[in-house]
Amino acid sequence: MALILTFLGKGGTGRTTLAIAAAKKLAGLGSQVLLIGQDPSPAFSMLLGTPVDSSPTDIAPNLKVVNLNSTALIAQGWEDVKELESKYLRSPTLKNVYGQELGILPGMDSGLALNAIREYDKSGKYEVIIYDGDSSLTTLRMLGIPEISSWYARRFSQVLGESDVVKALSPFIQPITSTILNVSWSADDLSQGTTNDILSQGKAAIANPKRLAAYLVTTDDKVAIAQAKYIWGGAQQIGLTVKGVLLNKTQATDTLTQEFAPLGVSAIPQRTGDDWQPLLDALPDLLADTQAPLPLTIDVAARQIQIFLPGFDKKQVKLTQYGPELTIEAGDQRRNIELPPPLAGQSVKGAKFQNHYLIVSF
Amino acid sequence: MALILTFLGKGGTGRTTLAIAAAKKLAGLGSQVLLIGQDPSPAFSMLLGTPVDSSPTDIAPNLKVVNLNSTALIAQGWEDVKELESKYLRSPTLKNVYGQELGILPGMDSGLALNAIREYDKSGKYEVIIYDGDSSLTTLRMLGIPEISSWYARRFSQVLGESDVVKALSPFIQPITSTILNVSWSADDLSQGTTNDILSQGKAAIANPKRLAAYLVTTDDKVAIAQAKYIWGGAQQIGLTVKGVLLNKTQATDTLTQEFAPLGVSAIPQRTGDDWQPLLDALPDLLADTQAPLPLTIDVAARQIQIFLPGFDKKQVKLTQYGPELTIEAGDQRRNIELPPPLAGQSVKGAKFQNHYLIVSF
Repeated sequence: MALILTFLGKGGTGRTTLAIAAAKKLAGLGSQVLLIGQDPSPAFSMLLGTPVDSSPTDIAPNLKVVNLNSTALIAQGWEDVKELESKYLRSPTLKNVYGQELGILPGMDSGLALNAIREYDKSGKYEVIIYDGDSSLTTLRMLGIPEISSWYARRFSQVLGESDVVKALSPFIQPITSTILNVSWSADDLSQGTTNDILSQGKAAIANPKRLAAYLVTTDDKVAIAQAKYIWGGAQQIGLTVKGVLLNKTQATDTLTQEFAPLGVSAIPQRTGDDWQPLLDALPDLLADTQAPLPLTIDVAARQIQIFLPGFDKKQVKLTQYGPELTIEAGDQRRNIELPPPLAGQSVKGAKFQNHYLIVSF
Repeated sequence: MALILTFLGKGGTGRTTLAIAAAKKLAGLGSQVLLIGQDPSPAFSMLLGTPVDSSPTDIAPNLKVVNLNSTALIAQGWEDVKELESKYLRSPTLKNVYGQELGILPGMDSGLALNAIREYDKSGKYEVIIYDGDSSLTTLRMLGIPEISSWYARRFSQVLGESDVVKALSPFIQPITSTILNVSWSADDLSQGTTNDILSQGKAAIANPKRLAAYLVTTDDKVAIAQAKYIWGGAQQIGLTVKGVLLNKTQATDTLTQEFAPLGVSAIPQRTGDDWQPLLDALPDLLADTQAPLPLTIDVAARQIQIFLPGFDKKQVKLTQYGPELTIEAGDQRRNIELPPPLAGQSVKGAKFQNHYLIVSF
């Protein structure tokens, strides 16, 4: 299992350049590094100074690079879908559709990329994986997939389990499945909503800063700084730990250091020509354990949870309990918090927003 | 119906600034303008110099601005889903799930935004709608929804219509639907795949430069130029006409003008403080009819189609015929071209790539 790092910030602040610098630095220090880009334009290859391919290619000792290509990944994934279908279905239908025909709809890039990262991680070949996505908001949505999909799965399996529709359908399910499937399923099998191992593992990985962490990238432009702060908060909403701030092409100032406290701020010089060394030297120790606040702390004994939400002010954070779980809304993201048994299903007694923390008592 | 404009280019080149400038200019000339942003961070509001809200707000004569918020849009859309369910389903289930709980998965932002743009357009209140998306690659995926979804619908309804599974299921469909629905459906209703008006209208709007068009934005940075050229090609792949190039914060050069020929290139000066006038003055006539090449020309008599694909070289363009339609692959996008009757289903006789055109003969 690898440490997965990603660099988040406004477009044009140098995220890709710093992802490349981080990959070069860690490979130089002896880690097996895979740098993953996801840019179909020539930009990634131009910044890297070498052509990129859709399968991992050596570009320096210990350093491989790959550029994710959704049309290739979907064609590959479609073969797996067809194989599954032919295993379960008596007369497979999808065999008449080819992976090479399938178009890419919004969201597919993210799903395919997350799955590709998971597989590269699982391969055991890399100690560090650096992912450089297209936009940081897209990367946050992508890393939110395991938690949000898990919520949809548990919420809708509960609703379907209680529904009259599933009860009305149940006499039909066994005869239908035995007609079309090689296996026989009952209504219970369909409504139970099996725990999905891949999603649970994904959630655990994202919540663990030894497995996945982000750095913020900004210049001294005030719009870029505001967006970096927003992304810092947005990362907490998906349970992603932010380890530090890279202040690109500029000097660190006290004001900036205060704005991002308690994170460390590293000033990175502008690259001149092909000389990457000053950038590598200026990067912090990317493998060090982090002192950064955890996105979520649950204290069952104190009947309290603490959610770290920097970058938002009080009126941007909304706490509701419409459904069976606690919903936190901030920065156009919604997070449903699954609480452990003694707190699950309890009503909120009080909530306050203090020093970037939302503190909720039950 | 409005003219919808969008500004595409690498992050950090000034897309949002130029979208704002375009909105100011057109409103100043007397058009009713809606500027749509989709940025949950404070960046959009900072660049605009005024707070933004999730419903359209007046900020100047003839000029309204709205910032799309996916959590609000999904809650609203969910109410429509529940209403539909309660209309058709005898015992509705979804009423127990609240729109305020729903998390945002990748792709939802794009689907919700495209629907919001469609509704603002349909409202008849605006002559010009300017959409400023997050990343340009995401905007291309979003504007590809009508064409690609239509393909999925027609391809899979055909496959399902021929499938043994649908035949095996057909005796069950009527008893099931009559048990759970207020209406009665047969297997034919399910497999016919009704033409979706909204998708067809969306495809027609995107293919019509009087309804929807894009401008490229770049600085003189070579990576930004390469990405703008790539986006130019990518736009053709979804049938979107690019009307011109805005060269931001720099002077136009002959080399650059040649790189983007036959498009017009306008040099836009850097903004100083709050003085937008020099930017407004430097913008081209955004409402003028375009001489830009159409993305796709079908000549039935000559049994030939021409696909304009600038920004790609020959080996980046792939033409295949795996399924019943012609598939063009370029720049991590796949387009299936639905041909009119005399050419539909015909085999390709020859293809060549010449002066940015892929010319296919049948």
